[in-house]
Amino acid sequence: MLATLIYGERDIRLEEVPDPVLSTGGDAIVRVVAACVCGSDLWPYRGVVPTTRAHRIGHEFVGIVDSVGAEVSKIKARDFVIAPFYDCDMTCVNCLNGVSTSCLHGGWWGADDRLGGFADGAQGELVRVPHADGSLVATPSLPPEHLIPGLLTLADVMGTGHHAAVSAGVTKGSTVVVVGDGAVGLCAVLAAKRLGASRIVAMSRHADRQVVAREFGATDIVEGRGPEGIAAIKQLFGGIGPDCVLECVGTKESMDQAIKSVRPGGAIGYVGVPNGGSELPIRELFNTNVGVNGGVAPVRNYIEELLPEVLDGTINPGRVFDLELPLTQVAEAYAAMDERRAIKVLLRP
Amino acid sequence: MLATLIYGERDIRLEEVPDPVLSTGGDAIVRVVAACVCGSDLWPYRGVVPTTRAHRIGHEFVGIVDSVGAEVSKIKARDFVIAPFYDCDMTCVNCLNGVSTSCLHGGWWGADDRLGGFADGAQGELVRVPHADGSLVATPSLPPEHLIPGLLTLADVMGTGHHAAVSAGVTKGSTVVVVGDGAVGLCAVLAAKRLGASRIVAMSRHADRQVVAREFGATDIVEGRGPEGIAAIKQLFGGIGPDCVLECVGTKESMDQAIKSVRPGGAIGYVGVPNGGSELPIRELFNTNVGVNGGVAPVRNYIEELLPEVLDGTINPGRVFDLELPLTQVAEAYAAMDERRAIKVLLRP
Repeated sequence: MLATLIYGERDIRLEEVPDPVLSTGGDAIVRVVAACVCGSDLWPYRGVVPTTRAHRIGHEFVGIVDSVGAEVSKIKARDFVIAPFYDCDMTCVNCLNGVSTSCLHGGWWGADDRLGGFADGAQGELVRVPHADGSLVATPSLPPEHLIPGLLTLADVMGTGHHAAVSAGVTKGSTVVVVGDGAVGLCAVLAAKRLGASRIVAMSRHADRQVVAREFGATDIVEGRGPEGIAAIKQLFGGIGPDCVLECVGTKESMDQAIKSVRPGGAIGYVGVPNGGSELPIRELFNTNVGVNGGVAPVRNYIEELLPEVLDGTINPGRVFDLELPLTQVAEAYAAMDERRAIKVLLRP
Repeated sequence: MLATLIYGERDIRLEEVPDPVLSTGGDAIVRVVAACVCGSDLWPYRGVVPTTRAHRIGHEFVGIVDSVGAEVSKIKARDFVIAPFYDCDMTCVNCLNGVSTSCLHGGWWGADDRLGGFADGAQGELVRVPHADGSLVATPSLPPEHLIPGLLTLADVMGTGHHAAVSAGVTKGSTVVVVGDGAVGLCAVLAAKRLGASRIVAMSRHADRQVVAREFGATDIVEGRGPEGIAAIKQLFGGIGPDCVLECVGTKESMDQAIKSVRPGGAIGYVGVPNGGSELPIRELFNTNVGVNGGVAPVRNYIEELLPEVLDGTINPGRVFDLELPLTQVAEAYAAMDERRAIKVLLRP
């Protein structure tokens, strides 16, 4: 089959690799219907995270089950399934506590699983999925074509934006600022709207992303950053700041923006993978009673809640995909996102 | 009148100072019935925080109102009142948001208030209280003598322990570990019990404090610290950790203990005034989805909730006082706490 590998900075290649085979009894082989490129994939692509050896890449996909191991009981061949950006059993104490990203037996796409088998990266034609009954969620029936992008967001960005909002305690009437206008930040706007936020400010300086933010529920746009952005936010909220800030970038600057924007006693929900240098200034947080909650989003735990609203059209997070390419053009997909020609690229094997 | 001043390291003096006078219209003069020494008072006492000029000290007191300014309407002369460890108006947006420690017009005992008047330190005979209608809470009637210590804890330690528990989201059935066995840590045990925690581990290596912790609701005691303490906690909670850790110390070591003890997806409620070097390791928090909430406790916002239970004997946080001295022995009160001969010392003017 064909699968994507990263060889180094700006070196993405689609190559012939061995087809995966069932190996643990609890696994499944899934034929990928749609995959995509994540903002976090750009880190090794840009060389921010060095690539020391070529390896598979990609961690978001939906697909059709090809075959399942002997111990798999809930997932069946020909099911249409959504996979989170990691595998998990959904039976261990951490999964049951709602933190499936800390599954005691889980792992990551493109890496060996805990049982020694290889879980393929998602930017390919087939993926071997460990713990298929836990990792995968099947739709009630084969979804129509126009819902594929929205379903694909449940693998990562929509669940991650939702996690930011949940972690910040967004509820009916909350005032919210979203830092970051990538696919996750935009989904965080949608999540905040869905949870009942009364006012949602999207911090964005890109016209195309501002349009999506407005569609998703943003009531205000702030283009400034740093001190200028903080001043603009304070002005919008009576000099005090919003109840919640959703930090969807992961840099020192974005976290600083969040901490300095939120009101005393407010909360930051953060899901941006933290870059170096962003240790939290505890004395500043202490003095203002600002809470910091979030982390690597346990999106698997959110799929059951969000899926019905994608299926019935209540929410349309698939709107974040503004470019679709065949898998054969995966290198171009990376370049388009790197150069900000696209918010998020959907790939079709 | 007599009031306590700190002159420098281990140099506490009781001196004659001018009686306070009403000056802003909204203030009150309160005759102190009971005050006390706080763990945070030991920082300047020990020289950890340098004292550059002699100044008043003390921030916890209950007393009888002597006189009130012309604009004061709720508080009356002869009321028995509880003062939080700061003054606040309880009408500004931050106070109404539950964060009276960030009151837009509030201040601190022993410092000039925002209107330019001086708010006396609490370890004295009289205190001028700014924003009397906001800062002070009057009891329904003159309380009996045996309730004075419990009422005094509402000025700081009980409200602060409660804030740790609330910030960590302690609720019915939560499993909780409390780091720190000072008066705040012990009150955090009591607060967790009151909020319905099913299991409460007190980390303490002092027999006298363990006794109080047990009385307050601790189900287990762990004496170890550092890696040994973390291992003991993990073992008590199935290798995973508790839902909530209440950090009531404020050192790098205690916060590290909290972060490494709590379960994935759990929460830390912290109220220990952070010492230097305790910046939060965001990547570790991100990977495990551990939330960090808390800060300088808005105890004024909690008095109405906790007061009835102190008055009817449901909770007895006054148990943390194990030594009572006349104000004339205030220097000995500091020494007793510094040398850990007492958990907390009550002072009687």
